[in-house]
Amino acid sequence: MGDPAGVGPELCLHALNSHAALATCSLVVFGERALLQRVSQATSLPLPPELRVVSALKSRPETACTLVEIPITDSAEVKPGEISAACGAAGFAFIERAIQAALSGAIAGVVTAPIHKEALRLAGVSQPGHTEICADLTHAPRSCMMLWSPALTVSFATTHIGYAEVPGALSAERLVDVMELTAEALARMNGRPARLAVCGLNPHAGEHGLFGQREEERLLEPAIAVARSRGIAVAGPLPPDAAFIPAQRKKFDAIVCLYHDQGHIPFKMLSFDDGVNVTLGLPIVRTSVDHGTAFDIAWRGVAQPDSLFKAIECAVRLVQVRVP
Amino acid sequence: MGDPAGVGPELCLHALNSHAALATCSLVVFGERALLQRVSQATSLPLPPELRVVSALKSRPETACTLVEIPITDSAEVKPGEISAACGAAGFAFIERAIQAALSGAIAGVVTAPIHKEALRLAGVSQPGHTEICADLTHAPRSCMMLWSPALTVSFATTHIGYAEVPGALSAERLVDVMELTAEALARMNGRPARLAVCGLNPHAGEHGLFGQREEERLLEPAIAVARSRGIAVAGPLPPDAAFIPAQRKKFDAIVCLYHDQGHIPFKMLSFDDGVNVTLGLPIVRTSVDHGTAFDIAWRGVAQPDSLFKAIECAVRLVQVRVP
Repeated sequence: MGDPAGVGPELCLHALNSHAALATCSLVVFGERALLQRVSQATSLPLPPELRVVSALKSRPETACTLVEIPITDSAEVKPGEISAACGAAGFAFIERAIQAALSGAIAGVVTAPIHKEALRLAGVSQPGHTEICADLTHAPRSCMMLWSPALTVSFATTHIGYAEVPGALSAERLVDVMELTAEALARMNGRPARLAVCGLNPHAGEHGLFGQREEERLLEPAIAVARSRGIAVAGPLPPDAAFIPAQRKKFDAIVCLYHDQGHIPFKMLSFDDGVNVTLGLPIVRTSVDHGTAFDIAWRGVAQPDSLFKAIECAVRLVQVRVP
Repeated sequence: MGDPAGVGPELCLHALNSHAALATCSLVVFGERALLQRVSQATSLPLPPELRVVSALKSRPETACTLVEIPITDSAEVKPGEISAACGAAGFAFIERAIQAALSGAIAGVVTAPIHKEALRLAGVSQPGHTEICADLTHAPRSCMMLWSPALTVSFATTHIGYAEVPGALSAERLVDVMELTAEALARMNGRPARLAVCGLNPHAGEHGLFGQREEERLLEPAIAVARSRGIAVAGPLPPDAAFIPAQRKKFDAIVCLYHDQGHIPFKMLSFDDGVNVTLGLPIVRTSVDHGTAFDIAWRGVAQPDSLFKAIECAVRLVQVRVP
């Protein structure tokens, strides 16, 4: 359900009312019924009468729509668009319970609605966001972020660190991990071996040492060689500005990027409304909407559920399709 | 004419045969008649019979098509698609003479066809490319690269340096220079004051110091304040991945980028075939095709002249329109 004060609750209502989504999976909302009711009244999005409310989920639900009731402490503090410790704590509790359910096998995957970094901090949560919470609670030894949409898929060797810290955070080992995780996920989603490309770090991918400190030769080429030796089809290092032109994009299932904006700039240009954020490498399937809490429009019924629907579609594909 | 062994000569033939281009300006080719004839025979692109060949140009030409004859030394060395010192030296001589003609007022602006870095080096030319040659030969105190197309315009605080060198190369002074040069050029081209945006350096433009070393607060915000105090309308620092989405692009005439791929990735996605490379800050107008010598297809008559035609259009707009 995400942060109660954001657009998460109304996105859950959209999903619970979507015949298309329910045709592909059963939905379990981790949140609070009273909150969903308040948001339903505020937005005129109906609360489905068939929604079954349970206090815990021991096994796969037999109903199409289930809500696992997780009461919000200090629910009087919850106001649309307002940052609060109560909402941070609630958002964290919802994720925690969903992850536990996924680890136990009671649900097949977790799709997350947006939470708010500042609210999490007020609630004393040490992790800055979903990706880190998921990695910590599932004890994942390695993980990475992938952005997926019908137009483009990118995965990242680094994400939320400063521009200047990127070169020091890159290693051949990390690059191999990201290539493996990306290839595995795309093979699962597409039912055939993945075709990957990796971007260089420097302009023109260094142009044979002309620009940069030979990061392409020192890190990327050895990593690519290791990945190929493990059977991964991977091209590169590509000049970053050539990797995302239409003719190149068509050749690859995913493009591995070295830093946040290298992949986020092209991804947001192509998939601003329907992007999905996927955490790879976890022992559970986890996808997320690719937008924030949108506090400025929360509880008004105008938030668009496209990204959530795509996140559900992506999770279903990751769950159902098997490696070829 | 660019490197004789590349697609430059046939692009000149396209231009000399273009009624659309000649309707907007008189064309003066700096190159060699014998070379143009060889390429005309190889490509079946006609050499216009009205082409006037002169050994030097003292004042504005009275004919629509003029060729300033600059004989190629070792012309036997010139073979399509082959890197040679002879071609590097010829390409350099063509540019040098064109710049001299522009400085003297005999021509209104210079449009360059592609040259080859390696050929230049073999010919003992110290500058790595056109932009540096133009800056040196015109003694420009400050200059910057701009990429222009109907879909997007970006200018750059840094270009062909390594990823890791970018933070050290940025300064508030440099950013103010680039904003001023960009605003001046766009005002000239559009006949009204320019609206600019500047990208941040870090993910999310640093998110108030959360990522990075506060480059946004230390460098970008002071530079933006100075630019505004000089009457430039400039927004930012924008989160780089939000700057290029369609809704944002429409708001601005140009987006100032801090490093090569921040601007080249979105530009190439939108304008791979019809981009123009403009050098701002020179005492002369200078535009260029936004592609290389394309040695693999040189002298076959298949090179597309779209980028050259746009480069001519851009130069004409920079020459003709006056600051509002």
